[in-house]
Amino acid sequence: MTDVLDLAKRLIAAPSVTPATGAVFDALQAMLEPLGFTVHRFVRGSGPAGSDEAPVENLFAIRTGTGPRHIAFAGHLDVVPPGEGWASGAFEPEIRPSPGGDLLYGRGAVDMKGAIACMVAAVADVPADAGTISFIITGDEEGPALHGTRALIDFMRANDHAPDLCLVGEPTSVNRLGDMMKIGRRGSVNMWLTAKGTQGHVAYPHLADNPIPRLVAAMAELDALVLDEGTDWFQPSNLEITDVEVGNPAHNVIPSEARARLSIRFNDLHSGVSLSEKVTAICARNQVDVRPVISGEPFLTPPGDFSAMVSAAVEAETGIAPEPSTSGGTSDARFLRSVCPVIEFGLLNATMHKRDEAVAVADLAVLARIYARIARAALES
Amino acid sequence: MTDVLDLAKRLIAAPSVTPATGAVFDALQAMLEPLGFTVHRFVRGSGPAGSDEAPVENLFAIRTGTGPRHIAFAGHLDVVPPGEGWASGAFEPEIRPSPGGDLLYGRGAVDMKGAIACMVAAVADVPADAGTISFIITGDEEGPALHGTRALIDFMRANDHAPDLCLVGEPTSVNRLGDMMKIGRRGSVNMWLTAKGTQGHVAYPHLADNPIPRLVAAMAELDALVLDEGTDWFQPSNLEITDVEVGNPAHNVIPSEARARLSIRFNDLHSGVSLSEKVTAICARNQVDVRPVISGEPFLTPPGDFSAMVSAAVEAETGIAPEPSTSGGTSDARFLRSVCPVIEFGLLNATMHKRDEAVAVADLAVLARIYARIARAALES
Repeated sequence: MTDVLDLAKRLIAAPSVTPATGAVFDALQAMLEPLGFTVHRFVRGSGPAGSDEAPVENLFAIRTGTGPRHIAFAGHLDVVPPGEGWASGAFEPEIRPSPGGDLLYGRGAVDMKGAIACMVAAVADVPADAGTISFIITGDEEGPALHGTRALIDFMRANDHAPDLCLVGEPTSVNRLGDMMKIGRRGSVNMWLTAKGTQGHVAYPHLADNPIPRLVAAMAELDALVLDEGTDWFQPSNLEITDVEVGNPAHNVIPSEARARLSIRFNDLHSGVSLSEKVTAICARNQVDVRPVISGEPFLTPPGDFSAMVSAAVEAETGIAPEPSTSGGTSDARFLRSVCPVIEFGLLNATMHKRDEAVAVADLAVLARIYARIARAALES
Repeated sequence: MTDVLDLAKRLIAAPSVTPATGAVFDALQAMLEPLGFTVHRFVRGSGPAGSDEAPVENLFAIRTGTGPRHIAFAGHLDVVPPGEGWASGAFEPEIRPSPGGDLLYGRGAVDMKGAIACMVAAVADVPADAGTISFIITGDEEGPALHGTRALIDFMRANDHAPDLCLVGEPTSVNRLGDMMKIGRRGSVNMWLTAKGTQGHVAYPHLADNPIPRLVAAMAELDALVLDEGTDWFQPSNLEITDVEVGNPAHNVIPSEARARLSIRFNDLHSGVSLSEKVTAICARNQVDVRPVISGEPFLTPPGDFSAMVSAAVEAETGIAPEPSTSGGTSDARFLRSVCPVIEFGLLNATMHKRDEAVAVADLAVLARIYARIARAALES
């Protein structure tokens, strides 16, 4: 089998703090083309570094098989900033022993250059005529994600690339490789609340109109809201007020405006729009304005053929069946759900986004074999 | 009678933005000593300009009479900053005609150098042997008032100066000179509320403890609180939440702390301490901490001999009886109430703290005669 450790080291060695462009994509392209993939790359965004419009690179690679089926592997080559205090260079992959076996250190080891290396090693092990395999790889999953996977989906639609199934390589394992896969993710919406009034002196409240009581009343109602009790596959939807802001330095002044922000993580009993309408109705009763920004709708690939296929592959290589979960934050699966059924499965997430991010060297080979089993099963299904 | 207009111009011409020291006190001393007053001046505070501990000058002047009674005139020589856009210099007193008669322009014209000029003119018209008259004049009423009238009261106590009655010259008239006197003022207390929790990610609320709901619950209870329905002499006590602050820029983070500030203006059914205890009890139920700062207790000089004396003097000179009121913000009467019965009566407050502050030249002479009548009546009582 292909040396997956070498592939992982080559990807980690190309610095790619989000948004990523250039060298790390060159490295992946150099791995895929010898395997018979046609590689398409394009950059979106032309704003200054640090802005939401900073350039983002995307890569779509496809190897068309003779079979009718098409499985896509999806992921991202961008990483979060390394931060300080690493024992070795964040972009200088280094193997060090540990009681549980050798570990490969480097930013992206588990999230998710390691998994992309496993995908490459896996497809190298799948005959080209077994069916169509594609890679949907963005350089902006950790950032605003405006020009990342969404742009890749636009590209695929424009070019009639329509996978039947999609496997996202996010690090879903918790305690050991194989213990969890994600069959869904909650949706996410943030809302900005504003109450307006009339400024005045606290000694003359009849001449002023304090907006804070209205905002407080709205927040108290929102806090008391039970959105649902959860579903078979999702925990209850949750609303958190994350900020309140008046910014009034004068203790004898009634302010003219009060603002708050809330964040809702929600299951598939709701949509971003239905929740925006619900919150807006409560706020309207209290004369509070609402500006919602929907970050992602929930996705659910209900347990069935695809999850059974992933589960069987995991069990064959690790001996354990992954728990189907919908926990955690959002991922690019929120976009890919519009294309085809999506499941996420990947490495251990314990060190993701942390200092000294590392992957067990042994896990890389196991995950490559799991991905190869999933690809073969998907193309035969 | 003494030229009260000239006295007012001399006081206005000495710039004295709060906290005041020096020249403006020299001017007042030069007016009082020829009238037989012994003048004591002292400076308190040694911090940098702009701090709560910046130097403040205070003046206590006394002319001991043969009669047993002692009336004090109280006020302040400091003024609020002039701001921009004056038609003439804020500290260059200028008389300009208006449809209602000549107006004297300058910062402090009504609040309250004009009134202090009237006090001086008044006592010049009262025989020295009629009784004891004192002046309690601070250079810090418009600022933090830490080293102003409070320090003067300490000085008086240390030197056994105990007036029977005190007339404060704040601008209490609203539409025409004489229409209102203050027989009381509400108390004032500000409170800082803090709710503490544990920071976390909005996707994992079970690992965090959001302090905002507790603060919101406390604020909702406080907002619903009816402190009282008012009294014969006071309007209902009022609580205003004046600020809320979390300061959390990250929309996916549950914050660890939330803060609010409230201000209560209260009547004599309460004290700063009783209200602090009431708010603290509500906040404690919601695990919110409270730090109260009492700015002033309410004062009330119930209608009686003193108010009748002031009313008669006003009516004799203006033809109208002043309405006894307890409205508006706080004044140094909150401190003087501990010494003796206090009533506030002075010029029109329409232009106080504003650009082009002005007093009707005719009002100065009328107010001087009113103050003289009050002094004579007080010393005969």
